[in-house]
Amino acid sequence: MIPVEEARARVLAALSPLGAETIALPEGFGRVLAAPIIARLTQPPADLSAMDGYALRAADAVLGARLKIIGAAPAGHPFGGTIGPGQAVRLFTGSVLPAGADTVLLQEDATLNADVLTVNEAVPPGKHIRRAGQDFAAGDVLIAPGRRLTTRDIGLAAAGNHAWLAVHRRPRVAILATGDEISLPGAPIAPGGIVSSNAHALAAFVTAAGGIPTILPIAADDLGAIAAGADAAQGADLLVTTGGASVGDHDLVAAGLQARGLALDFWKIAMRPGKPLMFGALGALPLLGLPGNPVSALVCAILFLRPAIELLSGLPGDPPALHHAILGAAMKPNDQREDYVRARLQNGVATPFPMQDSGMLRTLAQAQCLIRRPAFQEALEAGAAVEIVLLNEY
Amino acid sequence: MIPVEEARARVLAALSPLGAETIALPEGFGRVLAAPIIARLTQPPADLSAMDGYALRAADAVLGARLKIIGAAPAGHPFGGTIGPGQAVRLFTGSVLPAGADTVLLQEDATLNADVLTVNEAVPPGKHIRRAGQDFAAGDVLIAPGRRLTTRDIGLAAAGNHAWLAVHRRPRVAILATGDEISLPGAPIAPGGIVSSNAHALAAFVTAAGGIPTILPIAADDLGAIAAGADAAQGADLLVTTGGASVGDHDLVAAGLQARGLALDFWKIAMRPGKPLMFGALGALPLLGLPGNPVSALVCAILFLRPAIELLSGLPGDPPALHHAILGAAMKPNDQREDYVRARLQNGVATPFPMQDSGMLRTLAQAQCLIRRPAFQEALEAGAAVEIVLLNEY
Repeated sequence: MIPVEEARARVLAALSPLGAETIALPEGFGRVLAAPIIARLTQPPADLSAMDGYALRAADAVLGARLKIIGAAPAGHPFGGTIGPGQAVRLFTGSVLPAGADTVLLQEDATLNADVLTVNEAVPPGKHIRRAGQDFAAGDVLIAPGRRLTTRDIGLAAAGNHAWLAVHRRPRVAILATGDEISLPGAPIAPGGIVSSNAHALAAFVTAAGGIPTILPIAADDLGAIAAGADAAQGADLLVTTGGASVGDHDLVAAGLQARGLALDFWKIAMRPGKPLMFGALGALPLLGLPGNPVSALVCAILFLRPAIELLSGLPGDPPALHHAILGAAMKPNDQREDYVRARLQNGVATPFPMQDSGMLRTLAQAQCLIRRPAFQEALEAGAAVEIVLLNEY
Repeated sequence: MIPVEEARARVLAALSPLGAETIALPEGFGRVLAAPIIARLTQPPADLSAMDGYALRAADAVLGARLKIIGAAPAGHPFGGTIGPGQAVRLFTGSVLPAGADTVLLQEDATLNADVLTVNEAVPPGKHIRRAGQDFAAGDVLIAPGRRLTTRDIGLAAAGNHAWLAVHRRPRVAILATGDEISLPGAPIAPGGIVSSNAHALAAFVTAAGGIPTILPIAADDLGAIAAGADAAQGADLLVTTGGASVGDHDLVAAGLQARGLALDFWKIAMRPGKPLMFGALGALPLLGLPGNPVSALVCAILFLRPAIELLSGLPGDPPALHHAILGAAMKPNDQREDYVRARLQNGVATPFPMQDSGMLRTLAQAQCLIRRPAFQEALEAGAAVEIVLLNEY
């Protein structure tokens, strides 16, 4: 059994960011940038008015002054002339400041009568002007590579005049659920059998993490079926199996994959739920073998699969963020396995569910957090400080 | 000018959750459930082994006992007989517990020699057994309507034997950017013109909030073009415009929409950035008019558009969550407008960007949070407690 942190480091060390592809700007939300976005123009391109009002010379903008309107400059239609003494030009938010003007009088601070403007409020130079380049200048790096693009980034890339983006390819993740006892929802169920939840939950997980899932047909507990599943995963960037990573006679995934040249890195980690976690490779195809119990599979996905998908996507592959909470009920001492305990979270108080069997998916769905307990942690009283992983993003 | 909270309440009061549609389970991640998911079976369906080992009678599970192996029960292949005194059956994680057995001996606590099992550790009754119905029973409500489905929920719905889900339809949001001065990225730019960022940023925003965006062609500052844009939005659940909600001569959206029967609810709110926010309806089509400045448009989207999309999606339409932070630099007293100030956030300290012009999109992209300042808030010293909206999910 190796510790969680070492296992994650070994998984990440075996992976590299995928190459780039060109996509259209509207497809960019949530993708990871592979090349810097450099401003192709200066924004604003010229000094612009920040308000609706009048362009004029500050020297003329004295209380009671009467100025002659010599034109208008709607946004997108700059005024071609130059403003002289005693003159003003009507403008609007986003209008280019005409030559000769050095300030903007708000429309609510003026009275217009035919083409004569009366100044009702003095204005110093430079008011209500957005200076050229105030937001950015051509050549500026607007967004650095390695960032997952937000809605705001999409706007900024557009403003910098980028219709196309270079992003890391989405990781293709093949999901192979194994077991004679499992059926797909709605399909006939064998005596004593159950409905498979892992494949679809993991497919949603892969999607949420930014990958593209492929759910392979369920493989029976049979060496040939498992080897055939591995063949079907060729072309993927990562193969994820569930079940069969334990030590029982009928845990056959490793054996089945050995027929396809499995190079096993490790297959047992010091955590609960999820001891039988397997990692290795089939040639160039990395393999992450998750436990078959649905809670173990999803908790291991949070700790290992998401960092793996993120690293393939061009991100650092950070472990899940740990937050602080207060324990809501006493807990016994922990053993040699790092423990992730399903809990409710209310007002900063994390209270474990009384039963933690790794087959109980409902408590995982209802939990707001996992309490992380280091190996050999002593008994805890209610009120103790604990670290938690928030589940709302999973 | 009406307060932010009142404006949001009026927007939400005008909207209703959209109807349901049936989708396949793998499409369910992130969708909002419209009907309860009720367990169609009991899970586990029978008493199952939680480990790899041997089923036996606890009365026989005494140190040194030698038992006869009378069969095996791989997961998915229950043992048909009954275990009698002095007998045991090989089983695995997920195997059905055979009749006659009342406990499970771990395989590592036993020695097998041909068909004779030696017990190396005494076991009390009921060990390592997952009881029938321990996770849920047929008829249980597994997931209540009105929840945005997580990866865990998808697994739980599968385990409950649901291949199809009833979810609220995704809101279709038509986006109409207006202005003579704006061009699409890569297209020719008029003198003094800028590249449009709002439409694509808002499309990403709509996607992130769970809606389906349609970007309409940019409408010129022309009554007919704006009315035609409104016509193109028919069939949408919400029309979002940007620009033209202010008071200048060239702010024509309201005028253009009046030709299509605009019923205006309000068009001015007491907030910064974003005073000219418009809300109304074109017949049955609700209309949210966002300001044209890109920062104002996105901040108003956070405060109004996301709650609107969420309400249409079957969620409550909550305002963005407020978190606590420490102010990193002094701030002047606030005026009558509720203020949302772009800031960096490091170790719980929120430091405003020195310039807050609502044309500066780059600072919005770089900000980690918005500091929310109530109207008429007094001056604040560095170190003061402030409320923030986190930007990482936008």
